[in-house]
Amino acid sequence: MSMPLKDHEYFIREALKEAEKAYKKDEVPIGTVIVWNNKIIARAHNLTEQLNDVTAHAEIQAITAATNYIGGKYLQECSIYVTIEPCPMCAGAIGWAQLSTLVFGAYDLKKGYSLFSENILHPKTHAVKGILADECKEIIQRFFIEKRGKNIL
Amino acid sequence: MSMPLKDHEYFIREALKEAEKAYKKDEVPIGTVIVWNNKIIARAHNLTEQLNDVTAHAEIQAITAATNYIGGKYLQECSIYVTIEPCPMCAGAIGWAQLSTLVFGAYDLKKGYSLFSENILHPKTHAVKGILADECKEIIQRFFIEKRGKNIL
Repeated sequence: MSMPLKDHEYFIREALKEAEKAYKKDEVPIGTVIVWNNKIIARAHNLTEQLNDVTAHAEIQAITAATNYIGGKYLQECSIYVTIEPCPMCAGAIGWAQLSTLVFGAYDLKKGYSLFSENILHPKTHAVKGILADECKEIIQRFFIEKRGKNIL
Repeated sequence: MSMPLKDHEYFIREALKEAEKAYKKDEVPIGTVIVWNNKIIARAHNLTEQLNDVTAHAEIQAITAATNYIGGKYLQECSIYVTIEPCPMCAGAIGWAQLSTLVFGAYDLKKGYSLFSENILHPKTHAVKGILADECKEIIQRFFIEKRGKNIL
């Protein structure tokens, strides 16, 4: 399922809207959308502080919502768009759900799954990396500088 | 936080009780308990079929329950006992929660996190491997042979 770059940018911008929602809640601003037949069927942002739960990453919530929408455990016809490279936990979930495509914005140079193993994803999942990376990185940098007084990237 | 072997066996047996519950529900039989001050504060078993959700692994549910119990996002004073080696998704969650100790029974030779990277765990998490491995493996083998007509191990 290959798509023109502008479509990837469109959906990463939608994921960025989710990241902005997280920012306003003082959550680390990471957002995601899941797309099926060119339509967004799930959207989520990081809620680890509000839910007091380290597993409440955007991707985990979106996968749960999307499988609920689809009515099946697997998302083989869906793509996931995330503003930041998923961590191993989220890449593992993307792997189990067998999403056809993972598109992410900025690399995570500390916790990104590719630092651990590319094989955490399902072998059939196609990864597209670095779409609107600067915009995706900017909101995280802004968060850590303004809210927490440090720059982690 | 080092503990005598018999304590590890006691808590793995408690995790096996959870695996038996999963077996009776036709779920892949994997169980877990989380222990704080020698007391079980969370117990869970795999519910991916019933919840139609690939993220509903025992460990993910137990971490959410334990942080709810503790009232904090981190579980640095807790140990998690799992009947089977966690997958990268669950090891990632164990990493984020910073559990002091991971104890597991049987190795997962296809999806175990150690096949991908030991570093998925938090550097402070101590891993104890292979406790009651035969018992933990037996229930999975029984499940796949009796329920699904194949042996995956």
